[in-house]
Amino acid sequence: MGRAEKQPTATSAGEFALIAAIGDALGPVASGEGVVLGPGDDAAVLAMPPGHELVVSTDTLVAGHHYPAAAAPANIGYRSMAVATSDLAAMGAAPAWALVSLTAPALSIESATAFAIGIRKAAEAFGLKVVGGNLARGPASVTVAVHGHVPTGTALRRSGAMPGDRMYVSGSIGGAGLALADAPALAACPWGQVPPGSPLARYWQPQPRLALGMGLRRIATAAIDVSDGLAAEVDHLCQASHVRAALELPLVPLLPGAVAETAIGAGDDYELVFTAPPEKAQAVAALAQAEAVPLTFIGTIAAGRPWRGSWNARLDATAPRGYRHF
Amino acid sequence: MGRAEKQPTATSAGEFALIAAIGDALGPVASGEGVVLGPGDDAAVLAMPPGHELVVSTDTLVAGHHYPAAAAPANIGYRSMAVATSDLAAMGAAPAWALVSLTAPALSIESATAFAIGIRKAAEAFGLKVVGGNLARGPASVTVAVHGHVPTGTALRRSGAMPGDRMYVSGSIGGAGLALADAPALAACPWGQVPPGSPLARYWQPQPRLALGMGLRRIATAAIDVSDGLAAEVDHLCQASHVRAALELPLVPLLPGAVAETAIGAGDDYELVFTAPPEKAQAVAALAQAEAVPLTFIGTIAAGRPWRGSWNARLDATAPRGYRHF
Repeated sequence: MGRAEKQPTATSAGEFALIAAIGDALGPVASGEGVVLGPGDDAAVLAMPPGHELVVSTDTLVAGHHYPAAAAPANIGYRSMAVATSDLAAMGAAPAWALVSLTAPALSIESATAFAIGIRKAAEAFGLKVVGGNLARGPASVTVAVHGHVPTGTALRRSGAMPGDRMYVSGSIGGAGLALADAPALAACPWGQVPPGSPLARYWQPQPRLALGMGLRRIATAAIDVSDGLAAEVDHLCQASHVRAALELPLVPLLPGAVAETAIGAGDDYELVFTAPPEKAQAVAALAQAEAVPLTFIGTIAAGRPWRGSWNARLDATAPRGYRHF
Repeated sequence: MGRAEKQPTATSAGEFALIAAIGDALGPVASGEGVVLGPGDDAAVLAMPPGHELVVSTDTLVAGHHYPAAAAPANIGYRSMAVATSDLAAMGAAPAWALVSLTAPALSIESATAFAIGIRKAAEAFGLKVVGGNLARGPASVTVAVHGHVPTGTALRRSGAMPGDRMYVSGSIGGAGLALADAPALAACPWGQVPPGSPLARYWQPQPRLALGMGLRRIATAAIDVSDGLAAEVDHLCQASHVRAALELPLVPLLPGAVAETAIGAGDDYELVFTAPPEKAQAVAALAQAEAVPLTFIGTIAAGRPWRGSWNARLDATAPRGYRHF
């Protein structure tokens, strides 16, 4: 780590005090299963279970772009962990370890602690150990790298959908989109007071479908998580699998208050979309019951182009079909 | 990935065009040994060698804080990889995989391609595969997460130095500090025209001591890389090992032009500092010869507090003793 310009530090606590406060707030989630050496050295040392492959992904959330800059630090921490971890769910991976990199223009002990409490709560909820990270001065953003594992050869991919497969989506769609529609409430939402199941909870505390993803290893031919919107993610899955999908808009499961035409273009739901052959329909139903999560049939995979989803409803051609980062 | 505010995209190429350009520029370094599934899915899938532990670390470089904002994108990419990879060297890890997260306020195809060329050249030089990452709109910064592996139980740590051990530093110190002292030249330095061994090369193209780190697994009792300055890193090693170090300032190996009192407080050299017992002196010398890298004795470890290095020279008490990130 180096620097090209020096910045005043008057508004921040010292680096080592901040790191100590974060370490205290993380508490037990910095050590445990598979953690040979946790935070504090040049790198973490981790023990992989034999016979497994490593699954890794990373996401960056930037203040003012991916979350309201004035949001509660604990909400930002929790959401950053959830967004990254959802990619492990989409691969069918068991969660293991996270690296958390925080950049902030200035940081008080209180803010750092609150942020770390959000990270810790997410780590506890998802079964992750926080084994390292980075703390840097700069415009506010968070990058989380997550690590999981799968028995060798069992990772779910986007690319396995076959003609004749059925397409399903977990849970319900549109909650985060509703939350985004009320920007002041989104920014003002306090930590720890988000009504469960509400649009604000869908946005600030998404629950990655980890157990579902692991259960789908033996069932699904392809899977992806709904981060950029259902319509966009179906398109990504179809492109990767070189198939098309005939989709039933009225079948899309919606959070109460959401409108299907809008909901499929809004992102941030972190449900899973997956495909499975018809003969696995009973297995899909059994998994839904075992994991207590609705798995809703929304359409069928067909051969040939266009490699995207075609919805059986007139969609507003000007409506967003998914989030573009650039 | 979501968003709280939308930003105009007029000055950027589209997200998918940028990702495609980056993928093209990365070329072969996105696949190869151990890469079961590379970029393009929700996560990468990686095969660990049996009998090894995973070593992971991450670093964030922020424009205007950790590098000049106007620098050549390829220089920024190369340096970002080198800084993160140096942590693998300090652990004695064999390099394996990297995740590269780029945040930029706007991005042309040309800039994205140049950045990716810097990433690729570093990946080729260090033996890393680039298996994923993130592209986000926001103030410019780069976060690289690196992954390596060591035979189980052989990772180098900061914490193993023992009284009586000798302390060594690799290569020479002070080059990056000299480069930082000429800010206009640092920012204007073009990609591909950095004189080897020059202060500018030390800053823009540090060479992580990977082979040295791996060779030290059987020799060193503790190791750390010189990212925040030699004096600060010696202190970190002593604190982690609960020892003190009696150090000989005149012995510190310097790049021509550097002054010891300043050089030990300047960061960004990415050499290794390590300790080894006296009976390993011949092994240290043999390793220096085998790897063609100077390994210079700079002092001796002693028992007890203060857990830091004491230099046998009058140092300016107001001089920086290492880079503070906050």
